[in-house]
Amino acid sequence: MQPQSRDCRFAGKLRPWISYYKRRQSRAPNRQLTVLRCCCTVTEMAALRLLNFWAMLVTLSVCNGWLFENFGSYRNREADEVALWPLPQKIQISGAAFQLSSAGFQITHANGSTAGPSCSLLQNAFRRYFDYIFGNARKQGKNQQKVFDSELQELQVLLTAKDPECDGYPNLKTDESYQLEVDQPTSVLKAANVWGALRGLETFSQLVYEDDYGAHKINKTSISDFPRFAHRGILLDTSRHYLPLKAILTNLEAMAMNKFNVFHWHIVDDHSFPFLSRTFPDLSQRKGAFHPYTHVYTPSDVKMVIEFARMRGIRVVAEFDTPGHTQSWGKGQPDLLTPCFSGSSPTGTFGPVNPILNSTYDFMTRFFKEVSTVFPDAYIHLGGDEVDFSCWKSNPDIQKFMDQQGFGQDYKKLESYYIQRLLDIVSATNKGYMVWQEVFDNGVKLKADTQLHVWKENPQYQDEMARITAAGFYTLLSSPWYLNRISYGQDWQAVYKADPQNFNGTAEQKKLVIGGEACLWGEYVDGTNLTPRLWPRASAVGERLWSDENVKDINSAYNRLAKHRCRMVQRGIPAEPLYIGFCPHEYGGL
Amino acid sequence: MQPQSRDCRFAGKLRPWISYYKRRQSRAPNRQLTVLRCCCTVTEMAALRLLNFWAMLVTLSVCNGWLFENFGSYRNREADEVALWPLPQKIQISGAAFQLSSAGFQITHANGSTAGPSCSLLQNAFRRYFDYIFGNARKQGKNQQKVFDSELQELQVLLTAKDPECDGYPNLKTDESYQLEVDQPTSVLKAANVWGALRGLETFSQLVYEDDYGAHKINKTSISDFPRFAHRGILLDTSRHYLPLKAILTNLEAMAMNKFNVFHWHIVDDHSFPFLSRTFPDLSQRKGAFHPYTHVYTPSDVKMVIEFARMRGIRVVAEFDTPGHTQSWGKGQPDLLTPCFSGSSPTGTFGPVNPILNSTYDFMTRFFKEVSTVFPDAYIHLGGDEVDFSCWKSNPDIQKFMDQQGFGQDYKKLESYYIQRLLDIVSATNKGYMVWQEVFDNGVKLKADTQLHVWKENPQYQDEMARITAAGFYTLLSSPWYLNRISYGQDWQAVYKADPQNFNGTAEQKKLVIGGEACLWGEYVDGTNLTPRLWPRASAVGERLWSDENVKDINSAYNRLAKHRCRMVQRGIPAEPLYIGFCPHEYGGL
Repeated sequence: MQPQSRDCRFAGKLRPWISYYKRRQSRAPNRQLTVLRCCCTVTEMAALRLLNFWAMLVTLSVCNGWLFENFGSYRNREADEVALWPLPQKIQISGAAFQLSSAGFQITHANGSTAGPSCSLLQNAFRRYFDYIFGNARKQGKNQQKVFDSELQELQVLLTAKDPECDGYPNLKTDESYQLEVDQPTSVLKAANVWGALRGLETFSQLVYEDDYGAHKINKTSISDFPRFAHRGILLDTSRHYLPLKAILTNLEAMAMNKFNVFHWHIVDDHSFPFLSRTFPDLSQRKGAFHPYTHVYTPSDVKMVIEFARMRGIRVVAEFDTPGHTQSWGKGQPDLLTPCFSGSSPTGTFGPVNPILNSTYDFMTRFFKEVSTVFPDAYIHLGGDEVDFSCWKSNPDIQKFMDQQGFGQDYKKLESYYIQRLLDIVSATNKGYMVWQEVFDNGVKLKADTQLHVWKENPQYQDEMARITAAGFYTLLSSPWYLNRISYGQDWQAVYKADPQNFNGTAEQKKLVIGGEACLWGEYVDGTNLTPRLWPRASAVGERLWSDENVKDINSAYNRLAKHRCRMVQRGIPAEPLYIGFCPHEYGGL
Repeated sequence: MQPQSRDCRFAGKLRPWISYYKRRQSRAPNRQLTVLRCCCTVTEMAALRLLNFWAMLVTLSVCNGWLFENFGSYRNREADEVALWPLPQKIQISGAAFQLSSAGFQITHANGSTAGPSCSLLQNAFRRYFDYIFGNARKQGKNQQKVFDSELQELQVLLTAKDPECDGYPNLKTDESYQLEVDQPTSVLKAANVWGALRGLETFSQLVYEDDYGAHKINKTSISDFPRFAHRGILLDTSRHYLPLKAILTNLEAMAMNKFNVFHWHIVDDHSFPFLSRTFPDLSQRKGAFHPYTHVYTPSDVKMVIEFARMRGIRVVAEFDTPGHTQSWGKGQPDLLTPCFSGSSPTGTFGPVNPILNSTYDFMTRFFKEVSTVFPDAYIHLGGDEVDFSCWKSNPDIQKFMDQQGFGQDYKKLESYYIQRLLDIVSATNKGYMVWQEVFDNGVKLKADTQLHVWKENPQYQDEMARITAAGFYTLLSSPWYLNRISYGQDWQAVYKADPQNFNGTAEQKKLVIGGEACLWGEYVDGTNLTPRLWPRASAVGERLWSDENVKDINSAYNRLAKHRCRMVQRGIPAEPLYIGFCPHEYGGL
């Protein structure tokens, strides 16, 4: 028999006892306690488990009036079914379990909530999570069931902000926190706005499990939760391969299940330009896209992605990477790219964007004006990585320009010249910008709110994070999270262990880390394999960016993530297995 | 403009010219010639392409009366669309193209064929390949179209064997050869039996392409084809993860598209026992399977897999691996496994099958009697790999038995004792057997027709192949084809380069190599990711085992395989991309 609940303040008082048990017992934390973890250390948890009945009585009296109904029948197995992912910041789960029936349970707007049925974002979320909870077993007809004492009848969603942002877009400063009190007959999910409510609904849905008889149950639970980082992203690359809309939407669904909040859409690159621009349709229509009709994202498609994401609390940050990575741009926009030379003759090939022509900046002004209206997010990712100078070097006009500007042979200065002008253009659209780390490395003058995206593995990314934050800039990490790279075995573990704040720096520096992104570059990925390759490996990044920094026990993570991936499978996401085993409801196969 | 056809005898006569061009030109073989390759070397092909009009005229006169209609309009792009995979042994493609319409084209039994409409295997294949060829564009209604001169109206299938084996099963000695003459108005596919016809239908379907207007076309073509190896297998593991029936059937479809002919069903192992035995149902029902109803293969399921495979010319070789890899067997069959000891006390854990009890052999006799009737194939795979001796060593009864038998401390002798008795049991069912290489390495006495399956990478598999064949045994290779192992990048290339006959040995020894198998062990694979992980990487093995040993140009393979994978995608197989690019019809995403 084991204690029914864990209050970490209580755990603190038990530390003398714990160190006694620590000396006697050094076994690993018990799997079944995983979900009961809060602010206690692993050892404290293991020790708590070993406490005798006396300690349980103490627990009863200390834990803030927390009640332990159904005391005798408490079973760890049931609690173990609840594999929360990512783990909330603070959680108490009681052994008391309530039933939920599809006919008797409803999610409603609480009295006094600033949102009501006209908040379609919330209404859609209610429907989505109701479906997740009851799956295909949803019954038709009115509630004619007998209500049992232990039945959970309602989850009331209470929004408190004057503007709950039903029709808004999430942003970097969005408050995603929520409080969830699961009790019968009525549970309450409290949040400032719809974004916190979405996170809380996901957690609520994860708390529901099926008992041996297939009945839906949820334990009495108290959760207070908020994200560790504000920017928790997934990068998908739609240039190396075109990703069908359905694959993108499925990924957004999976992101919401893992509390990600940024879809970084690396929409164009060297290999194809699938973004159908209204201002410059030739970019995709004249061989820039793999195919002008079947392999493009029309304005309607883009709108749908943005709205689908918004409904799940996900920002869509588009990346239009220049001056490198632009081969496909050149097909529909003559004179945009630099002609490469061999001696005094043009080779017929082209290099990066031509930075010395006024027409380039006229084009960029009009293009980014469109982009800034198509994508509502406050930020645009401008790329700026991997600029190959060899073509610039070969071009006589560029050499002349370098001389005129006094750049000598320092092509980083030319790159900076271009980027600086581009940043001015984008700033004029009232957008903030994200750029890859090279823009910082090459000494471009940046606005204070610029976000620098660290992606290189060498030199060590920790040093780069330290340098960027020492210079006072915001940064986010991707280096250890290039999930396109695969290897045999449980490579999610290395992904899970990386931490964006694990570098030498002051507390002030650490605060400049806004989060990170898992990147799935598209060289070897398309609609056939994207989803199982990304999930649940990206889930490991999801927990790292949401949960407390001390949540890093790999065994606990394995147990919860294996179940969470089965939950994703049951919800229709073909997330691949971590290792040997099975899901109660397997993916049907293809 | 380029030559219209390639006859390799002709190419041989051109060698002096070729070496002249070789000196002047060292560029890589032209991609567009890929499909025209036959027995010519790559350099000969490249040289042929460079020949002038005079050479073409010579070609006309030399190439065995082969005609070149539609000469002026011949376009390489169209021929390039025809990416045959695996490449047939002998092939001539003309520039003359015929149209096919879904309303006007039919696949029929030729006059004089030994098979007719009652041959349901063929009838089903006709339907399947008709659907592949015309996709969703199949028109309803009778043929009311005008027949053009250049229209292909019929593919006649002519079987010549007295018994075309419509209701039979393929076996190791099956003749899979076929001749295909594509001409208008009637093409002929000639084979001894249904198995060759199936391979020829696959090739025919691959020859059809769509022109710019979406019209279905096929070039005048002559093919004579046969497999290099008789055993071309895929191993799937349904123990580490349960694979839903649909995933297995999809894989069988993909196998047929790549001319594989053996499904090696590694059906049970340590982790689960999903095979529902009628004789010993407890094996799967008493916790041997992950779940007794949802995670088992019933006798009906097994029958369906076997029949689905048969219809595609695929043998189903079941593996029941003993004496190791049997933890799951112990759950439903008490006393089958060896109790492990710590000193004089049993530990409660179990090791390999207990080889010293008569009950073990009684069980195996009854079990394999059932297996031999459930699986019609002439071979059973008996495993025999990775036997861990530590538990046997710990067991006092086994020690006593070792003394009695005079085995000393040589546990390989005990293993051999077990395997020898098992082989006798299986021989009595009139089945042949396959075993993993350890059975040979450990000196077990084997029947002459035993097939030894080489899987270890170290010591070098080439040496093992040499040893086994020097001892006069049949062998097949899997070591370089463990496709469960993944790495970042184009790992299909290493897979493609491996060759089962690439070891030091006599011609006689090489003849003992019956083929090989691509293995997808199940630790990290289930229905969510199986298909894109296996395909098109397994296709590389497919060509290695079917095509001529000289077919190994990696650029040609890349170009054909990239298109072949798009063809698989269009047929509903989510085969992953080789590298950057696109398919005309993308997989819709999940």
